[in-house]
Amino acid sequence: MRPIAISLGDPAGIGPEIIAKAWDLRDREQLPCFFVVGDMAAIKAVWDGPVERIDEPSAALRVFDHALPCMQVADAGEVVPGLPTLDGARCAFQSLETATGLVRAESASALVTGPVSKAQLVQVGFTHPGQTEFVAERCGVGRDNIAMMLAGPGLRVVPITIHMPFTAVPEALTPALIRSRALATARGLKRLFGIENPRLAMAGLNPHAGENGLLGAEEIDIIEPVLAQLREEGLDITGPHAADAMFSPRARETYDAALCCYHDQALIPIKALYFDEGVNMTLGLPIVRTSPDHGTAFGIAGTGHAHPGAMVAAIRMARDAELCRRAWADPA
Amino acid sequence: MRPIAISLGDPAGIGPEIIAKAWDLRDREQLPCFFVVGDMAAIKAVWDGPVERIDEPSAALRVFDHALPCMQVADAGEVVPGLPTLDGARCAFQSLETATGLVRAESASALVTGPVSKAQLVQVGFTHPGQTEFVAERCGVGRDNIAMMLAGPGLRVVPITIHMPFTAVPEALTPALIRSRALATARGLKRLFGIENPRLAMAGLNPHAGENGLLGAEEIDIIEPVLAQLREEGLDITGPHAADAMFSPRARETYDAALCCYHDQALIPIKALYFDEGVNMTLGLPIVRTSPDHGTAFGIAGTGHAHPGAMVAAIRMARDAELCRRAWADPA
Repeated sequence: MRPIAISLGDPAGIGPEIIAKAWDLRDREQLPCFFVVGDMAAIKAVWDGPVERIDEPSAALRVFDHALPCMQVADAGEVVPGLPTLDGARCAFQSLETATGLVRAESASALVTGPVSKAQLVQVGFTHPGQTEFVAERCGVGRDNIAMMLAGPGLRVVPITIHMPFTAVPEALTPALIRSRALATARGLKRLFGIENPRLAMAGLNPHAGENGLLGAEEIDIIEPVLAQLREEGLDITGPHAADAMFSPRARETYDAALCCYHDQALIPIKALYFDEGVNMTLGLPIVRTSPDHGTAFGIAGTGHAHPGAMVAAIRMARDAELCRRAWADPA
Repeated sequence: MRPIAISLGDPAGIGPEIIAKAWDLRDREQLPCFFVVGDMAAIKAVWDGPVERIDEPSAALRVFDHALPCMQVADAGEVVPGLPTLDGARCAFQSLETATGLVRAESASALVTGPVSKAQLVQVGFTHPGQTEFVAERCGVGRDNIAMMLAGPGLRVVPITIHMPFTAVPEALTPALIRSRALATARGLKRLFGIENPRLAMAGLNPHAGENGLLGAEEIDIIEPVLAQLREEGLDITGPHAADAMFSPRARETYDAALCCYHDQALIPIKALYFDEGVNMTLGLPIVRTSPDHGTAFGIAGTGHAHPGAMVAAIRMARDAELCRRAWADPA
């Protein structure tokens, strides 16, 4: 397998530190070969381990054993952990763009993205709601046809609406969007996780899933009809379920992924249960893309306290998914 | 301490079973003396252990060692687990009413309520949104001045709005309601848990707590001003926090209770983390009232598989809170 490309993320965040720490753990965690795309100086600013510059992805294979391979794509300027700069944001943007391109071109096998600051990226011309939508666009896939999946060891969740105000959710939660996310999720679980008949569980929007209309009508008017249609087409999808009950340990065993109506409904349980090992994976793309499910954590950047668990899990999940995808594309 | 009164809950649900199982565990779990208010036949329908009729709460003290004491208040009719009836609902209602009255009259020390079915209770004249509001009314306390707290071993949450449709939340989330729930929570933690200076953390309504207005304005317009005012009055309250981050293990250590904007924001993390031991406690009442944080579970009633953990925790928390409340009311 070709090496995995990791974008640096914001140089003033914990991205450089957790990538370096993941490299340190490469043997113990049996990680596949990867390289970082960004600025060597930004890594050296927070880590005194070996970094070696490479000019093309394949060079990572001979470097990875003894040093963290880095493709230099931008100058992040002076890096002060915790204090983001425009130079740093430009480096993060360039790193994301190049890493995505390398995976698209099949020079690298899969994409892992480091944490960025949306507020910083906006100032240097980034116009997408997040890295997920950027990568989707570069892959030529419409943003309604992807699914953002957050995964921990015992739970996978997919928010159907994502980064929008609370009040915008009911209107955005259309049958068409539920349908496209459900189908992208089912396809993704099949192709990237090898789950032959994925079991999906859909949450209700209202408390107690509306309690038969007593506490809201979206379950009856919107969700139930589209689930019925999907079931008729052969999808294994249950719900709408009371959202507070469906993440209990026993309930979690009954499905392969939970479809959620909005951002916090999906992210609260994942982060409550798996804060240090949650992975964000984009389903519905022609490439494999994962990310640690946390932000730049500017507040602890530079202290050495950043936990590399989610980055390690993101690298491992990218490797496994890419192997699964290739077996699928090219059956023996 | 006088015995604790437990209302039976719906006879066709798991209430009778978990109360009986809690009695079985009385020695191992070092539970205080309690008695059930309801129908002896309903308990015998699902349990072959000893039940003994008592005519007044104090009689529980001499019975509790060798049998589950039961005050007979209604005939539940024929009980078929999983199949609720109107007779059963009347028994549940009468049981709740009598148990509440006994605690109000100080014949019993604290109230633990078994799980009821709202849909059933409505059919026999129950007009409150839930048992919490019923008990509050009987205690002469307005429903905005109480706080419904859900508690597990490592997390306490208080939803500010509770049983209402998703779309009704933004309008219901007023500064006045946030304020009254925050004050009820702080007072409750002080008086019932002995926490001298309670640390409260308030969640935002929007994803990422609105991200400085990018994803919604309620944090800036509604929540921040009222938190600032409360802080000025000396309350230790932080936020608004991104709801998905504030339930991580490290974040949970920084507060004594999380105030949440709506039902699922509060109940998802509690039930994901502590499904079998979550307790619902009403703060702001003159009496102590707890409840296991789960429903009637008609689906498993009668199978013997109901887990008594939450009932055991509710009884223990009621005992501890009542001891704390009395120490407060009557300092040595």
